[in-house]
Amino acid sequence: MKKLIVIFLLLSQVIFAQQKQMSLEDAILGRYTYLRPKSMSGLSWRNASAYTYIKGDSLMQVLAKSGKEELLLTKTNLETISGETFRAFPFFSWLNGNEMLIGTPNGRIKIDLANKKILSKITYPEDAEEVQFSEKGNLAAYVEDENLFLALANNELRQVTSDGGNGIVNGKSVHRNEFGINGGIFLSPKGNCVAFYRKDETMVKDYPLVDFMAREAEYTPVKYPMAGMESHHVTLGVYHIESGKTTFLNTGGPLDHYLTNVTWSPDEKYIYMAELNREQNHMQLNCYGAATGEKVKTLFEEKSETYVEPLFPIEFSKVNPNEFYYLSRQDGWFHVYKYNTDGKLLQQLTKGEWEVTRIIGFDEKETQLFVEGTFDDPLQNHICKVDIKSGEVSKISQQEGIHNASLSPDAAYVIDNWNGPEVPGNIDLYTANGKLVRNIFSAANPVKDYLLGENKLVTLKTKDGKYDLYGRLILPTNFDPSKKYPVIVYVYGGPHSQLVNKSWQHQARWWQYYMASEGYIAFTMDNRGTNNRGREFETEVHRQLGILETEDQVQGIEYLKSLPYVDPERIGVHGWSYGGFMTLNLKLRHPEVFKVAVAGGPVVDWSMYEIMYGERYMDMPQENPGGYEKSDMTRLVGNLDGNLMLIHGAQDETVVMQHSMKFLRECVKQNKQVDFFAYPIHPHNVRGKDRIHLMRKVSDYFLENL
Amino acid sequence: MKKLIVIFLLLSQVIFAQQKQMSLEDAILGRYTYLRPKSMSGLSWRNASAYTYIKGDSLMQVLAKSGKEELLLTKTNLETISGETFRAFPFFSWLNGNEMLIGTPNGRIKIDLANKKILSKITYPEDAEEVQFSEKGNLAAYVEDENLFLALANNELRQVTSDGGNGIVNGKSVHRNEFGINGGIFLSPKGNCVAFYRKDETMVKDYPLVDFMAREAEYTPVKYPMAGMESHHVTLGVYHIESGKTTFLNTGGPLDHYLTNVTWSPDEKYIYMAELNREQNHMQLNCYGAATGEKVKTLFEEKSETYVEPLFPIEFSKVNPNEFYYLSRQDGWFHVYKYNTDGKLLQQLTKGEWEVTRIIGFDEKETQLFVEGTFDDPLQNHICKVDIKSGEVSKISQQEGIHNASLSPDAAYVIDNWNGPEVPGNIDLYTANGKLVRNIFSAANPVKDYLLGENKLVTLKTKDGKYDLYGRLILPTNFDPSKKYPVIVYVYGGPHSQLVNKSWQHQARWWQYYMASEGYIAFTMDNRGTNNRGREFETEVHRQLGILETEDQVQGIEYLKSLPYVDPERIGVHGWSYGGFMTLNLKLRHPEVFKVAVAGGPVVDWSMYEIMYGERYMDMPQENPGGYEKSDMTRLVGNLDGNLMLIHGAQDETVVMQHSMKFLRECVKQNKQVDFFAYPIHPHNVRGKDRIHLMRKVSDYFLENL
Repeated sequence: MKKLIVIFLLLSQVIFAQQKQMSLEDAILGRYTYLRPKSMSGLSWRNASAYTYIKGDSLMQVLAKSGKEELLLTKTNLETISGETFRAFPFFSWLNGNEMLIGTPNGRIKIDLANKKILSKITYPEDAEEVQFSEKGNLAAYVEDENLFLALANNELRQVTSDGGNGIVNGKSVHRNEFGINGGIFLSPKGNCVAFYRKDETMVKDYPLVDFMAREAEYTPVKYPMAGMESHHVTLGVYHIESGKTTFLNTGGPLDHYLTNVTWSPDEKYIYMAELNREQNHMQLNCYGAATGEKVKTLFEEKSETYVEPLFPIEFSKVNPNEFYYLSRQDGWFHVYKYNTDGKLLQQLTKGEWEVTRIIGFDEKETQLFVEGTFDDPLQNHICKVDIKSGEVSKISQQEGIHNASLSPDAAYVIDNWNGPEVPGNIDLYTANGKLVRNIFSAANPVKDYLLGENKLVTLKTKDGKYDLYGRLILPTNFDPSKKYPVIVYVYGGPHSQLVNKSWQHQARWWQYYMASEGYIAFTMDNRGTNNRGREFETEVHRQLGILETEDQVQGIEYLKSLPYVDPERIGVHGWSYGGFMTLNLKLRHPEVFKVAVAGGPVVDWSMYEIMYGERYMDMPQENPGGYEKSDMTRLVGNLDGNLMLIHGAQDETVVMQHSMKFLRECVKQNKQVDFFAYPIHPHNVRGKDRIHLMRKVSDYFLENL
Repeated sequence: MKKLIVIFLLLSQVIFAQQKQMSLEDAILGRYTYLRPKSMSGLSWRNASAYTYIKGDSLMQVLAKSGKEELLLTKTNLETISGETFRAFPFFSWLNGNEMLIGTPNGRIKIDLANKKILSKITYPEDAEEVQFSEKGNLAAYVEDENLFLALANNELRQVTSDGGNGIVNGKSVHRNEFGINGGIFLSPKGNCVAFYRKDETMVKDYPLVDFMAREAEYTPVKYPMAGMESHHVTLGVYHIESGKTTFLNTGGPLDHYLTNVTWSPDEKYIYMAELNREQNHMQLNCYGAATGEKVKTLFEEKSETYVEPLFPIEFSKVNPNEFYYLSRQDGWFHVYKYNTDGKLLQQLTKGEWEVTRIIGFDEKETQLFVEGTFDDPLQNHICKVDIKSGEVSKISQQEGIHNASLSPDAAYVIDNWNGPEVPGNIDLYTANGKLVRNIFSAANPVKDYLLGENKLVTLKTKDGKYDLYGRLILPTNFDPSKKYPVIVYVYGGPHSQLVNKSWQHQARWWQYYMASEGYIAFTMDNRGTNNRGREFETEVHRQLGILETEDQVQGIEYLKSLPYVDPERIGVHGWSYGGFMTLNLKLRHPEVFKVAVAGGPVVDWSMYEIMYGERYMDMPQENPGGYEKSDMTRLVGNLDGNLMLIHGAQDETVVMQHSMKFLRECVKQNKQVDFFAYPIHPHNVRGKDRIHLMRKVSDYFLENL
């Protein structure tokens, strides 16, 4: 009898295990932990024939050709060599097949593996920010108190700037991370010079943030330049280590221009930058003398009636140092161009109605170019090989999905780390000719025990029939086509985003499955303005944000209404940031469609958004008053009907609280009821465990009102 | 046939008129307009035999004895005399039977009525603040840019101080209007000197307010000294008009003391003040030489184990200038004492377990004292006459209610402006002997067309049986005792308040009738700590705010639960400010009782409230950590269950937004759902037409959740 009970219990566990409902906690906490597909750690090429990865406390080496695997190094080995103690096998990178750079809590150690000894050691202070290491590992640059410092190999710490603070910032990212910028330190290839951004934001208005958690609330302002207002001034300094002298590039004015995509020439004599005017419609690729700071020449220019958005630094040829490659959207799609340093266009290496998303590398002679790109499907990202002479492009990655490449040093092999709609994560090894050598890793399906709604792609058309629009529909669990279901549209819709693609689960968030398990259809669609669809698709929204995006989203609604199992009286919408803006657009322009809406950290009026992003898409308020007026959500408050909730992080430095406050004020003024919540210590997004509170609030709003 | 229809329509209007439901708009907008009982305008004594009042554009005079009424003066007459133009009959006051002071938009004109001419004219700048006129009308003092100025009769404007600004404030109220303070200018009786407060708040921490309505949000800090933190320093300056010199009283330190109830001696030689230490448990009545600024003597002291709260300036005898009267709670109840200027107590004029609320005046020989006070019922305010010799007290006002007196110049007559539970507003004329001469005015019932729920008083007991507790119960319209009704408790509960008394409708707010018309029982009860009940009743809550008040409110709940028509599962609570604090106390200490709660502008933690009020009742946080901990609502968040909404004005300078933010933060931290709304441009209270939005929000929260 006991045995029977045990068997029954086991059986029921199996049944229940396969039928598990996704909880909100699963959806939120699981996203980055137990519901995230597993992958390999530290996978990287050691040399042309072998790659390495971390397994437990050890570094394993695998021969590419044979697949033969062996233990290369243990944590203990590394501790013996370095004299350090590590909690786990540390961060590392290969400088070549013998030399590794090992990360310590505040430094890097260069190791000679054959001789088991330290080659050099760099240590920087614990409060150092923005640390950058030279390729050779003999130098680090970092920022302390808005000033640039160097840590040299002989334990020398050197202060490069001293004017940091009070609105002057050295060595940090500028232009609010637009234009592909993600740092402010540019070490020269041989390690003799350091270029760095200097930002003067003394003329930029303070946005008043308040730290409510202090004993008595504290004023903690940030510099926030709003569209049409005075912008910060950026210059580029070049510090010469030997002479100890700093030269600033003589870029000329107006000083509210954008200095982007800084690149050193291989010989360290020149610095190249894509310089963009404040209007963002005229880019010059300029070359400066690193020693003199004077402009040598303008290599070429790009102009546009909408905007030019340089995102990728030039990459110098290793074969001919007078040539470089550049990833540009000048023909309407991101493609690779080859120029010489006179600015002469030598060749367009890729072309066609698809987008190159990354230059992976070249073979040693640079006759073969490897790129990632959409190739034959804007919902995929493939690893492609381009024969430079013939221009012929062939896909190395084969399976439907989103592929990321790691090329072996001599370009004989490609590691393809990818996932697809039904594939949580695979790592495959290919030859450069596209022959699958072997599968290296396959992630288990982390949600195999859950009962999930069906997830399917839909393809619609813009109202004018010009473009395809791609959507993702998740049906409720235990879907019954004879019933009517409410819908929650999750929207983002802003430039540089693509929510629907052919990655794992079509890139759905687990929260959508959670709502599906609560009986809602979860729908998401990318509208005009979003990524990977070419310049025209993106720029149609220029100067009138919200208008065409909304028109496209309504196409999605029309589709939903055509489905017999959709209850057209119960449609809700939720989005954050640009998605909050879209949520307000949808709710206020179509109150008859959207019964319930939750707008998180929403842009309400683009004149309150920052200059770099805002003016690119809207121009200045003084140049485009009509466009700003049309996209000002406070002007649509009169249409408000039904349930709308705004949510805002009280410390939001991206879409500042002023947006929600002005919207609420207008609602109160017009005696329109609206709901609101503030997350006191959170910035633009509510992350960590508090996100459960947030998504409980969002979910409850739909559960109670929709 | 047509006639019949007309008659039917007329009839139905009558019926509907008598059955009108109170709308939210009526309740809120009507409160200060069409639902406010009418009264008389400008009612004041001209001389011993006649009073005057404004009727349309005219000033009417009535002889007290005969009641004979005549037109005294029209607006046009006044315009002819003054040379000014008035929209309506202007603000005025009688200096004597012949001389009037007339208000102009930025000044005062003294008129000789018999000779129809201007005696003097004072004009001050349009941006003048805090304007004070001398009794004789020949001098005004005012503040501009935190500096004190004088406007003299010969058109001379004189600047008295020049150090105002940047944390120095001259001539304005200090100590956050506590201790009866409502201004910072004290003109001497004969008009030769001006005493004024000087406040140095440079050492007080800024509380960061933000004006979200600016182009880019602006930082607009206010000085806000929180309990236990550094407080402002106040001194008293005396400006001598003839010499043009200013003397500051040499009050000594510590400088964070309180200088209160400033009074000039009749001869202008001395200034008397009730000086209180920061701890508020030791008061000295001190006398200073006005010319020297030096202390002459301490007349007497009051000490307490809880606090001394001087609220009323001394009033000099007009018969003997070396004697004065003082309204003090030294025996546990507010009573009138007579001292001489040596500080000798001559006589306690009133006594017993009741509170004198105001000294009205005396007869000419000062043998009869007239006061207002609770006398035989703490829910009433009566006009009483005290025979000083015998101590015998007799009521002049007879009817149940709240009475306010205006004594004729020779104390022969009293005008009694009063209202009672069933009386919207009456004005009666009495002789000083308590004989009703006549009714002067009776206000119509402004809600006679409305169908209102029954309003009744209930008397309960504190849990220990020691005190009576008074409550007001409003039954739903169309009440059916066989049904079960939900209850909304409206609470305030803080010191100096009394929500339930025997004024018109027992002082109910119309909003409570509105909720009654929506089917809710509206209940309100005054707990320990509230006003007019003596010192002991008030100070029991000392150092532990929220504890006994909550215990008392629960007595009210027990009573409600004992009523067969109360649904004990549907009890909600709403309050603002101290009432917000009480709402949190009730919701969090008794989550099983209160299903729904709305806390407006709530104090969450007394350590974030200001020094003057906060430390009186709680001492400093460093002196009473246990008390602060017990009354810190963030510590009770773990008990939260059901619906709680916090509402806060984003510009609140009284209970700062930090209170709500810290509470929300704790809710998020503990993953407790809570609702919140912010009124972007509103300070501590949401007033004006936006109050409809607020009370719609509050009402909906109960309608939807309770």
